[in-house]
Amino acid sequence: MTKSALQIARAAYQPKLPKALTGVVAVKEGEPTQSVADQEAIEKLFPNTYGMPLIQFVEGQAQNVAEMNVGVILSGGQAPGGHNVISGLFDGIKKLNPNNKLYGFILGPGGLVDHNYKELTADIIDEYRNTGGFDIIGSGRTKLEKEEQFEKGYEILKELGIKALVIIGGDDSNTNACVLAEYYAAKNYGIQVIGCPKTIDGDLKNEMIETSFGFDTACKTYSEVIGNIERDCNSARKYWHFIKLMGRSASHIALECALQTQPNICIISEEVEANNMSLDDVVTYIAKAVADRAAAGNNFGTVLIPEGLIEFIPAMKGLIAELNDFLAANSEEFSSIEANKQREYIISKLSAENSAIYASLPEGVARQLSLDRDPHGNVQVSLIETEKLLSEMVGKKLAAWKAEGKYVGKFSAQHHFFGYEGRCAAPSNFDADYCYSLGYTASLLIASGKTGYMSSVRNTTAPAAEWIAGGVPITMMMNMERRHGEMKPVIQKALVKLDGAPFKKFAANREAWAKETAYVYPGPIQYFGPSEVCDEPTKTLQLEQAK
Amino acid sequence: MTKSALQIARAAYQPKLPKALTGVVAVKEGEPTQSVADQEAIEKLFPNTYGMPLIQFVEGQAQNVAEMNVGVILSGGQAPGGHNVISGLFDGIKKLNPNNKLYGFILGPGGLVDHNYKELTADIIDEYRNTGGFDIIGSGRTKLEKEEQFEKGYEILKELGIKALVIIGGDDSNTNACVLAEYYAAKNYGIQVIGCPKTIDGDLKNEMIETSFGFDTACKTYSEVIGNIERDCNSARKYWHFIKLMGRSASHIALECALQTQPNICIISEEVEANNMSLDDVVTYIAKAVADRAAAGNNFGTVLIPEGLIEFIPAMKGLIAELNDFLAANSEEFSSIEANKQREYIISKLSAENSAIYASLPEGVARQLSLDRDPHGNVQVSLIETEKLLSEMVGKKLAAWKAEGKYVGKFSAQHHFFGYEGRCAAPSNFDADYCYSLGYTASLLIASGKTGYMSSVRNTTAPAAEWIAGGVPITMMMNMERRHGEMKPVIQKALVKLDGAPFKKFAANREAWAKETAYVYPGPIQYFGPSEVCDEPTKTLQLEQAK
Repeated sequence: MTKSALQIARAAYQPKLPKALTGVVAVKEGEPTQSVADQEAIEKLFPNTYGMPLIQFVEGQAQNVAEMNVGVILSGGQAPGGHNVISGLFDGIKKLNPNNKLYGFILGPGGLVDHNYKELTADIIDEYRNTGGFDIIGSGRTKLEKEEQFEKGYEILKELGIKALVIIGGDDSNTNACVLAEYYAAKNYGIQVIGCPKTIDGDLKNEMIETSFGFDTACKTYSEVIGNIERDCNSARKYWHFIKLMGRSASHIALECALQTQPNICIISEEVEANNMSLDDVVTYIAKAVADRAAAGNNFGTVLIPEGLIEFIPAMKGLIAELNDFLAANSEEFSSIEANKQREYIISKLSAENSAIYASLPEGVARQLSLDRDPHGNVQVSLIETEKLLSEMVGKKLAAWKAEGKYVGKFSAQHHFFGYEGRCAAPSNFDADYCYSLGYTASLLIASGKTGYMSSVRNTTAPAAEWIAGGVPITMMMNMERRHGEMKPVIQKALVKLDGAPFKKFAANREAWAKETAYVYPGPIQYFGPSEVCDEPTKTLQLEQAK
Repeated sequence: MTKSALQIARAAYQPKLPKALTGVVAVKEGEPTQSVADQEAIEKLFPNTYGMPLIQFVEGQAQNVAEMNVGVILSGGQAPGGHNVISGLFDGIKKLNPNNKLYGFILGPGGLVDHNYKELTADIIDEYRNTGGFDIIGSGRTKLEKEEQFEKGYEILKELGIKALVIIGGDDSNTNACVLAEYYAAKNYGIQVIGCPKTIDGDLKNEMIETSFGFDTACKTYSEVIGNIERDCNSARKYWHFIKLMGRSASHIALECALQTQPNICIISEEVEANNMSLDDVVTYIAKAVADRAAAGNNFGTVLIPEGLIEFIPAMKGLIAELNDFLAANSEEFSSIEANKQREYIISKLSAENSAIYASLPEGVARQLSLDRDPHGNVQVSLIETEKLLSEMVGKKLAAWKAEGKYVGKFSAQHHFFGYEGRCAAPSNFDADYCYSLGYTASLLIASGKTGYMSSVRNTTAPAAEWIAGGVPITMMMNMERRHGEMKPVIQKALVKLDGAPFKKFAANREAWAKETAYVYPGPIQYFGPSEVCDEPTKTLQLEQAK
C-alpha cells in the first residue's frame, strides 16, 4: 500500500488522554438521572436502563478484570476520527487484559445482523491510527430497530463471546443503541451496549456531550477551502462565491465556518425559520448586501449557505407539502401533460399562495420539484442546488433593481458545495485526541459493567490532560418525538440556538463583515506546529464552553 | 484585521534562499542563446533582446549599486506564492541599497497604463509574507500589447524614477514583458523589464524553467481534497466521484493529482487528442472501468477530469466549429424555433457526422452548446460541466450494457470541480522558497542591468541551498504561432508530453489503479513538520528532473 509522507509521519502520533485515564482508573458514580423531557414515557420504555447515574472516571487502584471480547460498529455517514475511537477502544481493552479481543462488524449495523465481521488485531489497528475515513471496517445505514435484528445480532455476539458492543454513530444510531441495550438487559443476555457521539453536523450535543467527533476536522477542512476562495475573491474582485455546506438539518457547520472565515454573508436556517422568512426574504437579504457592497465599489463577496436551508423556510415547506399531495393525487394527469406545459399546469392547480412561490422559482428548480421524486413520490429536497437557486434569484432581483435605478454594479457568481471533502479528512489533533479518549473511555465503561451509556469526554476546551472522562445514560438525553406518525423515544437533536453564544457572536459581527472585507484565512489543518495552531478547538466549542 | 493562528505563525517563516544569493553576488554569463524555433523571425522582431547569454549568479565580491526604484505587476490568474515573489524582490533591492523603493501597480497591467500604484513599504510587505492570494496589489487581465500602453506606462515609470519593471505572469504575460523590454530598449528609455514564471496550470516550463510557481501548492491543495473524497469513497463504497480540475489547456494538474492520489481513472487531454479519441471513446473507457470494478463487487471509484478536455477531443472541436459557423449564419431562423424543437432543428441541419455527435449529447449540454454563447456568438466551452456530461453518458452506456447482460452493478455519481480552492492557498514551503528566490533573483537581474530576462531558479529538487539562480533571455523560449489569424512571437506552451516521465509513470500504473483501490491520501499541506512531509516537491518535478 503506497502511503503519502504525511500518512507515514502521522501514524506515529500518540493521541493525548485525560490524565485520569493514564493510570489505574476507578469509577465515581453521580446521582440518578432523568431524561430531558417526557420522563414518565421514557422510563416506561426503558425500565432497565432509565435513571442510571452519571459516571466519572478518576485515578484509582489496580483491580483484576476478567477476559472479555468486545464488538464495534461504525454507523451512518463518515466523520474524521472514527478510526481513533476504535484504536482507543483497542488500546483500552488490551491494557485491561492483553487477551481481550476486538471484533469489528463490517459495513455498519448490517454486519451485526448478517454476521459479517473481522477481528481487529494490532497489525490492522496500527494501519489506521490517526487516519480519516471509516474504511477499517466500513460503515452503513441499516437501522437496528427490530427484535429480529437484535436476536440475529445476539447469535453472533454469543458465538464470539462478546461481552459488549460499541456503536459509533449519530443521534439516531445512539437512540437505537439504547433500545438494543434495554432489549439485551430485559432479556438478561449479559451483553452491554455503549454509544459514541459521532457526526460532522455537530447536532448531537447537550449538557453532557460537549461536541460530536468529526465536527472539528470537517469544519476546519471546509474553512480552509472557504478561506482560499475568499482570498481569491479578494484578489480577483469580480465574483460572488456562493458556497453550500453539508448539514441537512442543523446549521452548526455553516455557523462555525462563518466564525472561522468571516464571510460577507452566512444564512442560518434556524434563524430563517424562527423569523418565518420567505425565500424572497432570503434573496432580498442577500441582494441588499450585494447592492451595498457594489455601491462601495466592491462587486465581489462570499456567501455561506447551509445545505438544509430550503426545508427551514416555512413557505417552501408548505409548497413542498402541497406539491407532494397534489402530485400523488394527480400523477396520471400530470404525466400526460407535455413537458413544456407542466410548469403552467402546476401553477394553475396550486393554491394561490403556493402557486405564486412556485412561479417565482427558476425553471430548473421548478422542474426538479415536480419531476425528481423519490420512490415514495416525494420531492427530493436534497437534490436542489440551493447555491445556484439563490444566486439566480439574487441576479434577477438585482437586474430589476438596476432597471429601477436602485442598483449600480456587476454581479457574477461562482458556485461550490463542500461535503465529501471534509467527512474523511485525517483528524485534527483535537479530533484525534477526543476520539481516542472516547474509545478508551468506552473500554472502561465496559469494564465497569455499564450498558445504555454514551462515552463522554468533557472540559474539552482545556488541555487534553484536564479532560473529564465518564459516561452518560443515553436515556438522559431522550424525549418523545413524532416520527413517521408515531411517538418515539429519541435523543434530542441540537439545532443552532439563537440565544447561544456562537450565534450571538456571529450576529454581532455580521453587519460589519457584510460591508467590510474582513476575511480570515485559516489555512490547512496543521499537525506538527505550535499548539495555538494545532490544538485549538472550534470557535463554537470555545464560545459555548466559555463561562 | 483578524488573523487565524496559522496566518500569525506562518508570517514568521523565513524562506530559504539558494546559498549563492545569501552573500555578495557576482554574474556569470554563458554563451549567447537562440530561440527554440523560428530563430530568424524572432531575432528580427527582437533586435535588442535576442541572443543574450544565460545568466547565473555565483558568490562574488561587494560592489556599489546606485539607488534605484523598481515597479512590480501581478498579471492574470492568482497563484500561490505571488506575495513571496514580491517580498523576495523587496528584500533583494533593500539589501542592495536601503534607499531603493518598490512600487506596485494596482489590479494588474492596467495599473501601469492607468497610473494606479502604491509604494510597497516594509510594513505592507510584512503583512503579506508567506500568504496566498494576490491581494497585496491585486491582479488583472489587461494585455500590454500596444505602443500607446507602453508609452503611458513609460510616463509613470519615468515620473517615479523606476529603473526596472518586474512582471509576474504566465506565458502570455511574459511574452508581453519581452515585447515591452524590446520596445523600451529600442527607444533607449533606460527601463528594464524582467519576467517571473507564474501559473498553477504548470504549462510555463522548459529546459531553463523547471516549473512555474503556484503549481506545487495548488496541486497539493487539490490532492488533499481528492484524497479526502477517495477515503470517503472507499468507506461508503457506493459512489463514483467525478472530479474536474482547473486547467484550460494542459492536463498537468490532473496528471500531478493522479500521481499524488492514485485514483481509479484520470483522463489526460493530450492523450485523448493524440489518439484521436471521440467523446464516445472516452465514455466507453470510463464505463469499461466501472463495469470491471462492479464485476469485482466494487461499485465505487474516483475519476479525475481536466477542465479543458472537451477542446482536446478532435470530433468535439469539429462539432463546435460547425455549430459556431452554422448559428452565426442562421441566427435569425434559429431564434424563431420553439425552445423544445431547437434540438431537432440543429440535428437536421448539421453534417451527418456532427449531427450524430450532437444527438448523443445529454439534453442539458446540447442546450448549452446551442444557447449559451459569448458576445462573439461562440460556444462557451468553459461553461460545460464536463464532469456531469461524462457521468451522465457513462450512466447511459452502463444502462445499455445492463440491458444486454454485459454489466451487473449499481452506478451512482457525485460531482466536484476544484479550481478557486487552490489558486490562493497559502504557499507550501516549496512555493514560499521558490517564489522568494525568484523575486530575489529578479532584484539581482535588475542590479546587473539586464532586460528581457525571466528570473530563473533551477535544480529545484535539491535542497534550496543548492538551487541555481540566474536569468534566461525570454526570446530563448519563443517560437512563432498563429494567434487570431496572425503569426506572433510567443513563449511555447508546455503541454503534457506523452513520452515524458510523469505521464509514463502514470500510464504504467493506471491499469492497476483502475482495478485495485490503491488510493493515497496526501492530507493537508504541512508547514512545520518533518522535511519529508513539508518540503517535498511535486511528483511531476521529481520525475522530470530525475536524471
